[in-house]
Amino acid sequence: MGAQRNHQNCAVGLYGVPYDGTTSFRPGTRFGPSAIREVSNGLETYCPQLELDLEEIQYADFGSLQISNGAPEPVINVVKEATTQIVNLGLKPLLLGGEHSITSGAIVAMTEIYSDLILIQLDAHADLRDSWLGNKHSHACTMRRCLEVLPSNKLFQLAIRSGTRQEFEELNTTKRLISFKSGHEATSFEQALAPHLGQPIYITIDLDWFDPSILPGTGTPEPGGFLWNDFAAIVDVIKKHNLVGGDIVELSPHWDSTGNSSLLAAKVTRSLIMLLS
Amino acid sequence: MGAQRNHQNCAVGLYGVPYDGTTSFRPGTRFGPSAIREVSNGLETYCPQLELDLEEIQYADFGSLQISNGAPEPVINVVKEATTQIVNLGLKPLLLGGEHSITSGAIVAMTEIYSDLILIQLDAHADLRDSWLGNKHSHACTMRRCLEVLPSNKLFQLAIRSGTRQEFEELNTTKRLISFKSGHEATSFEQALAPHLGQPIYITIDLDWFDPSILPGTGTPEPGGFLWNDFAAIVDVIKKHNLVGGDIVELSPHWDSTGNSSLLAAKVTRSLIMLLS
Amino acid sequence: MGAQRNHQNCAVGLYGVPYDGTTSFRPGTRFGPSAIREVSNGLETYCPQLELDLEEIQYADFGSLQISNGAPEPVINVVKEATTQIVNLGLKPLLLGGEHSITSGAIVAMTEIYSDLILIQLDAHADLRDSWLGNKHSHACTMRRCLEVLPSNKLFQLAIRSGTRQEFEELNTTKRLISFKSGHEATSFEQALAPHLGQPIYITIDLDWFDPSILPGTGTPEPGGFLWNDFAAIVDVIKKHNLVGGDIVELSPHWDSTGNSSLLAAKVTRSLIMLLS
Amino acid sequence: MGAQRNHQNCAVGLYGVPYDGTTSFRPGTRFGPSAIREVSNGLETYCPQLELDLEEIQYADFGSLQISNGAPEPVINVVKEATTQIVNLGLKPLLLGGEHSITSGAIVAMTEIYSDLILIQLDAHADLRDSWLGNKHSHACTMRRCLEVLPSNKLFQLAIRSGTRQEFEELNTTKRLISFKSGHEATSFEQALAPHLGQPIYITIDLDWFDPSILPGTGTPEPGGFLWNDFAAIVDVIKKHNLVGGDIVELSPHWDSTGNSSLLAAKVTRSLIMLLS
Amino acid sequence: MGAQRNHQNCAVGLYGVPYDGTTSFRPGTRFGPSAIREVSNGLETYCPQLELDLEEIQYADFGSLQISNGAPEPVINVVKEATTQIVNLGLKPLLLGGEHSITSGAIVAMTEIYSDLILIQLDAHADLRDSWLGNKHSHACTMRRCLEVLPSNKLFQLAIRSGTRQEFEELNTTKRLISFKSGHEATSFEQALAPHLGQPIYITIDLDWFDPSILPGTGTPEPGGFLWNDFAAIVDVIKKHNLVGGDIVELSPHWDSTGNSSLLAAKVTRSLIMLLS
Amino acid sequence: MGAQRNHQNCAVGLYGVPYDGTTSFRPGTRFGPSAIREVSNGLETYCPQLELDLEEIQYADFGSLQISNGAPEPVINVVKEATTQIVNLGLKPLLLGGEHSITSGAIVAMTEIYSDLILIQLDAHADLRDSWLGNKHSHACTMRRCLEVLPSNKLFQLAIRSGTRQEFEELNTTKRLISFKSGHEATSFEQALAPHLGQPIYITIDLDWFDPSILPGTGTPEPGGFLWNDFAAIVDVIKKHNLVGGDIVELSPHWDSTGNSSLLAAKVTRSLIMLLS
Repeated sequence: MGAQRNHQNCAVGLYGVPYDGTTSFRPGTRFGPSAIREVSNGLETYCPQLELDLEEIQYADFGSLQISNGAPEPVINVVKEATTQIVNLGLKPLLLGGEHSITSGAIVAMTEIYSDLILIQLDAHADLRDSWLGNKHSHACTMRRCLEVLPSNKLFQLAIRSGTRQEFEELNTTKRLISFKSGHEATSFEQALAPHLGQPIYITIDLDWFDPSILPGTGTPEPGGFLWNDFAAIVDVIKKHNLVGGDIVELSPHWDSTGNSSLLAAKVTRSLIMLLS
Repeated sequence: MGAQRNHQNCAVGLYGVPYDGTTSFRPGTRFGPSAIREVSNGLETYCPQLELDLEEIQYADFGSLQISNGAPEPVINVVKEATTQIVNLGLKPLLLGGEHSITSGAIVAMTEIYSDLILIQLDAHADLRDSWLGNKHSHACTMRRCLEVLPSNKLFQLAIRSGTRQEFEELNTTKRLISFKSGHEATSFEQALAPHLGQPIYITIDLDWFDPSILPGTGTPEPGGFLWNDFAAIVDVIKKHNLVGGDIVELSPHWDSTGNSSLLAAKVTRSLIMLLS
Repeated sequence: MGAQRNHQNCAVGLYGVPYDGTTSFRPGTRFGPSAIREVSNGLETYCPQLELDLEEIQYADFGSLQISNGAPEPVINVVKEATTQIVNLGLKPLLLGGEHSITSGAIVAMTEIYSDLILIQLDAHADLRDSWLGNKHSHACTMRRCLEVLPSNKLFQLAIRSGTRQEFEELNTTKRLISFKSGHEATSFEQALAPHLGQPIYITIDLDWFDPSILPGTGTPEPGGFLWNDFAAIVDVIKKHNLVGGDIVELSPHWDSTGNSSLLAAKVTRSLIMLLS
Repeated sequence: MGAQRNHQNCAVGLYGVPYDGTTSFRPGTRFGPSAIREVSNGLETYCPQLELDLEEIQYADFGSLQISNGAPEPVINVVKEATTQIVNLGLKPLLLGGEHSITSGAIVAMTEIYSDLILIQLDAHADLRDSWLGNKHSHACTMRRCLEVLPSNKLFQLAIRSGTRQEFEELNTTKRLISFKSGHEATSFEQALAPHLGQPIYITIDLDWFDPSILPGTGTPEPGGFLWNDFAAIVDVIKKHNLVGGDIVELSPHWDSTGNSSLLAAKVTRSLIMLLS
Repeated sequence: MGAQRNHQNCAVGLYGVPYDGTTSFRPGTRFGPSAIREVSNGLETYCPQLELDLEEIQYADFGSLQISNGAPEPVINVVKEATTQIVNLGLKPLLLGGEHSITSGAIVAMTEIYSDLILIQLDAHADLRDSWLGNKHSHACTMRRCLEVLPSNKLFQLAIRSGTRQEFEELNTTKRLISFKSGHEATSFEQALAPHLGQPIYITIDLDWFDPSILPGTGTPEPGGFLWNDFAAIVDVIKKHNLVGGDIVELSPHWDSTGNSSLLAAKVTRSLIMLLS
Repeated sequence: MGAQRNHQNCAVGLYGVPYDGTTSFRPGTRFGPSAIREVSNGLETYCPQLELDLEEIQYADFGSLQISNGAPEPVINVVKEATTQIVNLGLKPLLLGGEHSITSGAIVAMTEIYSDLILIQLDAHADLRDSWLGNKHSHACTMRRCLEVLPSNKLFQLAIRSGTRQEFEELNTTKRLISFKSGHEATSFEQALAPHLGQPIYITIDLDWFDPSILPGTGTPEPGGFLWNDFAAIVDVIKKHNLVGGDIVELSPHWDSTGNSSLLAAKVTRSLIMLLS
């Protein structure tokens, strides 16, 4: 994608976390970061929506963390440290997963730096279980872990469409669930964010928020998701706000032999680099 | 999916019909029932649309019929008998195909039990040919066979988008074709069903009604189909009515290496179990 | 598809150009023409939108040109000659690609015959680069080559969604970019064509105009494309106009193991044969 | 492959039988004939083993029979008639399947013409069951059906490696099982055929005789099969004998995404055309 | 495969361990046990090599362990306990993996029961690393872990073809490496086992011992492996010995779209059930 | 693979040529170099056959040439120059293709440097056509082009198994065809090379020399090829000779969804780096 080798003068710091150790259904998100990098030369560097060109943007790609699959705790700790280091270098962090469990490492780091951090979650699943088969750091529990360091009203969960009865009751009671009808508009989302203009925002994008038709390459696909133009409407809202970090997780490229899931993820990455710069 | 082994106290009786003997274009629907069962653990048991949980519903899975591929007549007879037995046990039948030709066996059984049965067909194709390459029980003829036991005005064919000139003339003349514009509403369908509140309804879902982008795994895919939210709008209409049976046919899982076709079929199955219970 | 062997009394002349020599990202469009022919028997011959049946239409399939892959210039010349010959036989030409670079051969031939030719481009990409890696006949340059024989205001580029900053500036300055919001209507397009009623129109359909979800089998897929009903809206506009030729390019069938990309291309081909006859 | 359109002066008559109606495990042999024809241009026409060139051989390809899937009896009858007609035209028949059940139709025809016909079977399975799930014409029963018109000592079953205990007892008792160790020699086979020099021989090649590594595209693959050089050794034996017909069955191309199964089948077809001419 | 539900009177106890948490290269062995069970109906129950029929053998399938992916230690402990329980029920254990790390759990259990246990390893890799990326229970370390409870001269490592320089030096120094030239004979192996007639033997089969051509579906395939007939030669040696347990690991079915890897694994399973009964 | 970034002190210089412009049957060798690099971390760095470790060898990877697909002549010229430059740096060149046509560029360069160069060709095809569809630089003509700068008796064509009658007559007349029976020995090859001890040798490995079962990912696969142990026997011969350069061409990774073709190519690359160092 034409990232800089030297992080001086850069605004964004990208790094990959090829971890899929707790994945419950179909593994393979470890291949996410390399797949995004590999297909990125199939995309133009210019984005007509944001009218920006990657070649005019300074960002650094730090490569992928060297981690052992297996237990999640060490990985989440490494993510926390890496995120802190990148912010300390004056860069806004952008993680490429790997599975969703790694987000909690980034959020622990970011809330230490930004006490008023707002977290936006694009996801098919609520991820609010307290544990899964005895594992508290499963990717099905990542938002529960984030809520241990983040106030409930700082989390916006956008158009979640799958979860347990208990999870949906919590989503509705806490008013964290932001509705979103597909169709090029994002009014509810815009209104929900409006009071928070200028506050630091982190966005976690579980790619299974997209419909399986445009992103089949993910571990737990869920019918009834969103299309590209829906994401473009989200981008139009966020570009007015103060985005300070983000992650793009759950790309499992080998489940999609067309390669298009990776291409979509690369285009999402292009948008986020531009929103962060 | 957590079905009961014992059918006592159950409301729904599921069974598979792994038959694809007359399939004209691409075979493989014989693998449909096992594929739906296999991927079903990738779905939550809770449905936020219907606010029901499969774990709170009593339904029985009778497994798949042991049939020989080859001629269709013996298979259709076995389906007729199995359907009758399940109703006699006090259960509402739900068939997992297999190809569409098996529906006529179920409809013969159901019209013997419910003289005022209404049949709703979700399908890309009219299936109204009288015979196909000399075969009267081809899956291209299944609605013609159903109309031998069902009055023409009891059949509602929803948004058929492929057929011969003759089939479309019949669809329009008889007013059996219900129009449906995609986009989260089903007004015409709601109005068509309104006069029949409380009457016994059977729904046959040929999965090629869905767009090939979300369900590539079928024998005769047809561009221009429907998305999940369109199906959800249908579900919102049917939930007010008296559904007494149904089938989900034409899943051919091996044509979709992502596994998402089977997952969509499993989610449709989850909806139908809930609508029947 | 039931084409005639003899071109007498035919209105349309189809031929394939299995060339993919300059393809930059993923090769394979050479297999496009044979894939379209192979799957075409999975479609009905009747089109309910246009209320026409292929079996009632006279058209000829001249097979595929025998060409060597390698340099593009000889291929473009052969396409120019073949197009001229078909028009001289009294037929309207319909090319099946192959990559997009071949279009410039057809347009050179058509503008020699029709001095007031209008060109409509359905495409994800602007294709307006002057050269690509030193190659002036790359498929990324095909519209630039067409503009050497066609006045700028005779080209309508429909809903291009990918290009360089320079290309988008040109698209906007020249007003050649016709906007199109998905959703079953094509008002802007209808208005743009209105002043040209009766004039000869050629349509070039780069299949990557469609969304990768319904057409993954192409060389440079681009997220955010169009669905079948969007194309149907285009067809409703064009059917009132004087279409004199067209091409369907960039089908790369092996990148889509479901076969559905080829099926969609075959359905587009069915529409174009009908619009041309 | 460069077959003649006109059968005059031809020695061999090829035709396809795209039938897979009784296939028990994985369907798809209906696509066998078209797959062989499609990939055949990836092979040279010259065979260095036999030192013959297809371009110097006169043979006719009659295309594929138009049949309805479903019950096997009508198909087997059509095969019998087609085989007889081809012999009556002075040609040696070569069938491309389709599933193995069709062989019995050809053998009934051939034994009526050649009362001393010898049948050689290359196969992983014995195919000696009397019926399968009630079906006497299943592909698991095809040799049993052949033995109704052929004396037991006229059948040579080469290196069968899968069957029931009963089938293996019959194979051993009747001495119909010819052993064959892989490794470029076919001594036992040569000795078994030696007394029959000059007698009319028909060969049925169930492609699952080959190892699944070189021919994964078949319905019931069986580990432990043979490689190309083993087949070449068989060819070296047969070329001294009087081959009067043959078939190549059970290619199911869609189970092998590499296309190599079809290519191997095409090379076997090339050998058989040469052995028959 | 026709296993008994009730373990009374059974000789063999089968269970699956769907764990792939430490897999370094390509994950997916978690799907191994279900894939073997699913394809097993594509095989005959009779084995002509051993002249035994699965239908005449009493064995029990205990299903698959419910485990969380993530850290390996808890899984290895569960395997140890399950193995002990099965032996206590009077059955010989047969594990279906899952990755190779689970073997150490079984060997700890088996050496507690059989103090003179002999371990035979079929594998492409030595698996003798002490740790991998800091993980001592990685599947690259499983033989090192086994050697903590097993004397060095009780381990026979058959035809290892991949490892570090250090691993090969240890293999040669300790004389644990048994050479094996492919080609239907296993003389060195026979001689190595000869002194141990009657002693309890456990066999661990890492399926990547086979050549990638016949078993592509594994996590770390290594060119230059063995074919089915080589395995058959091993079986001929072992059948004279006292096999008391075994495992079949590293099947990763999704990397082989033909399904043949699973079929081969099922045939290996059939052989082992027979050798154990 | 752990190549050095700095070429000082290196013995071998690797570079990729992602060109497939003249490929006649199935394109995609442009992806060869990146596929080999990507999978190389699935292999150990130690080779037990040669008892060498890549980590102890100094070699440089210069990445892949930036070339435009299209006409072959410019690419062949660039290869000639790159090869010359690498030799001038004191390195032995190792090319990763790309299609076979690029070899002629390397051979022109190498014969200018080594007037007594010997060329060994491992290939399924003779590649001796003078032109193909009018193209003299097609990959079907590459050996003909090499013979324009190389004396006929300096070329050894190993076990060619496909070609025209004319090509085989030339192979036999000139005695350039070296026979090779699979089975771990290479006597004829050893004898043919014996008189040339110490002379500079270049080896061109068209990967379709291997059997399609172990290398399905190539453009024109040909049944009846060789296995890994056959290649190992070749390596045992060459290691006594003076290898000064080589290429590994015709890997087309996308035709093999298992990834094993790329892995085999990477293992061949590992062997050649060791033979050259």
